[in-house]
Amino acid sequence: MKRPDPNSVKRIACIGAGTIGGGMIAQFLASGYDVTAQDPGPNARDSLERLLDQAWPVLEQIGLKEGASRDRLRFTSDIEEAVSAAEFVQESVPEDLELKVSIYEKLDELVPPEIVIGSSTSGFPMTEIQKRCKFPARTVVAHPVNPPYLIPLIEIVGGEKTDPAVLDWAAAFYKVVGKRVLRMEKEIYGFMINRLQIALFREALQMIAAGQATVAQIDDCLTHALGLRWACMGPFATFHLAAGDRGLGSFMDLHGSVEWRAPYVTETPLPDWTPELRERILQQAEEIIEGRTIPQMIEERNETVIGLLKLRETSRINAAKGE
Amino acid sequence: MKRPDPNSVKRIACIGAGTIGGGMIAQFLASGYDVTAQDPGPNARDSLERLLDQAWPVLEQIGLKEGASRDRLRFTSDIEEAVSAAEFVQESVPEDLELKVSIYEKLDELVPPEIVIGSSTSGFPMTEIQKRCKFPARTVVAHPVNPPYLIPLIEIVGGEKTDPAVLDWAAAFYKVVGKRVLRMEKEIYGFMINRLQIALFREALQMIAAGQATVAQIDDCLTHALGLRWACMGPFATFHLAAGDRGLGSFMDLHGSVEWRAPYVTETPLPDWTPELRERILQQAEEIIEGRTIPQMIEERNETVIGLLKLRETSRINAAKGE
Repeated sequence: MKRPDPNSVKRIACIGAGTIGGGMIAQFLASGYDVTAQDPGPNARDSLERLLDQAWPVLEQIGLKEGASRDRLRFTSDIEEAVSAAEFVQESVPEDLELKVSIYEKLDELVPPEIVIGSSTSGFPMTEIQKRCKFPARTVVAHPVNPPYLIPLIEIVGGEKTDPAVLDWAAAFYKVVGKRVLRMEKEIYGFMINRLQIALFREALQMIAAGQATVAQIDDCLTHALGLRWACMGPFATFHLAAGDRGLGSFMDLHGSVEWRAPYVTETPLPDWTPELRERILQQAEEIIEGRTIPQMIEERNETVIGLLKLRETSRINAAKGE
Repeated sequence: MKRPDPNSVKRIACIGAGTIGGGMIAQFLASGYDVTAQDPGPNARDSLERLLDQAWPVLEQIGLKEGASRDRLRFTSDIEEAVSAAEFVQESVPEDLELKVSIYEKLDELVPPEIVIGSSTSGFPMTEIQKRCKFPARTVVAHPVNPPYLIPLIEIVGGEKTDPAVLDWAAAFYKVVGKRVLRMEKEIYGFMINRLQIALFREALQMIAAGQATVAQIDDCLTHALGLRWACMGPFATFHLAAGDRGLGSFMDLHGSVEWRAPYVTETPLPDWTPELRERILQQAEEIIEGRTIPQMIEERNETVIGLLKLRETSRINAAKGE
């Protein structure tokens, strides 16, 4: 099957234009593509414009690709119009499996089978999403991380019926877009990023539910300790540097048999998501939000992430890794 | 009981001078204290000097406090000599409960009861450590994060017999030292930072053991995605910004009942720490170490963390939070 050259794609259709879909639209526009965005929501177009108003100055700071322009965005509420002549489709409809399955049924009919469709799903395996497609081989999970226009990583993983050549295609395409591709060989719910993120989040919930920690204290653990290290290196490299000259193996031998298990971590089931726990968390979260609006917080986060990305470009960490 | 004024402490004894103890020694010296370091290890003094050789230029970049000097370090292998005239004792002996208990028995006799003793333990509750002390009221967990001279946070928590006034004292003292104090009200194994860190690490181990991920891929998830966000904000603030205008409550309602549980995360027991799993991890870790020595990697990490700390000083994230 003759697919478009992943290096020469010009026209992209984005189905769903919320926080993630809109963020991908911003990324594609900044990378110089023609984008047709589709979203049936009554305020979708206004929300998307507001998202782009906030993202665009950030993308200008990072550096737009040649020809990149917000003028290359078209918006429609009609899915058939959106995908017409698209050389790639990014689907980012809400995280509802039945909704995704029905959207893929529709895209299956509307989009020629040589065109790749990538899903922004944050956790559903493509095997579940593609199950009613006649042409499932060209469907693939392509999960970005919020905000997609700033966070480099995208997870690529296929379903049972995905053609492995489509994973190669998607990996090549997203590299041209400017993403860092994490290609998974096995399909698991939640992929990697959310499994890691949610594991930490679950432990935070356990401590909050047990009255051992507050939302603000959990925040402090990340922003004034763990996040500073993890912005430089992952957990294995961190432990490699924690045992003097002896390194990772020695560290793991010392701590592995005891400190990775209860009572050092919680092994009891996650508490139910009750109205009481919800209320406790929302009340405690006031302490970290401190009256700021969501757009204010996004602006502050973006400023720090841009600074951090620039910092790492010049630091020897990346230099040494040849990036 | 008349304790030294936490704002006027001048002489500190550091018991144990490995990675963590040595890092605290570097921090105390840079903050302008007289430090007596004690460690019985045959190469302890040389190792400490090498650690200081590496840490000191970093601390100079951050800015030494008035009077700070490496000349204010004395080294001894004798514990009695070390604690003589100390106004505070930081214990950082290896993470072995019986060893800690016997060191505290000795310190209990040697150190006047008005002098506070803080433990760098990464996970043992102070109730366990202080159990054979005659004067347990002045003992407290003060857990720093590696490298202690760069990562701001320190966790403070007492045991059953710790005087709550000693927690106040320690919180005031470490603030003067220049740390950001996380004061825990309930005593739990692993405290907060390691519980969060190990929860994520366990999920990484599960995926590696199941052949779903490699060490390098886990590393990428942190350095090119999760760590970039967590250097700016914690997990709750992150989710607050992930649902458009609807915020944290809406995000949690959508994802809480499904994506925080299996099959999105692993709820099966952690695999045993077998020689096979150890070997797989050490082999895969070569891909992230890339032939670099531990001192090289430490230097690279330090450079990025310093840049990040400086970046955040000037960014509005901290400005808005009044820090």
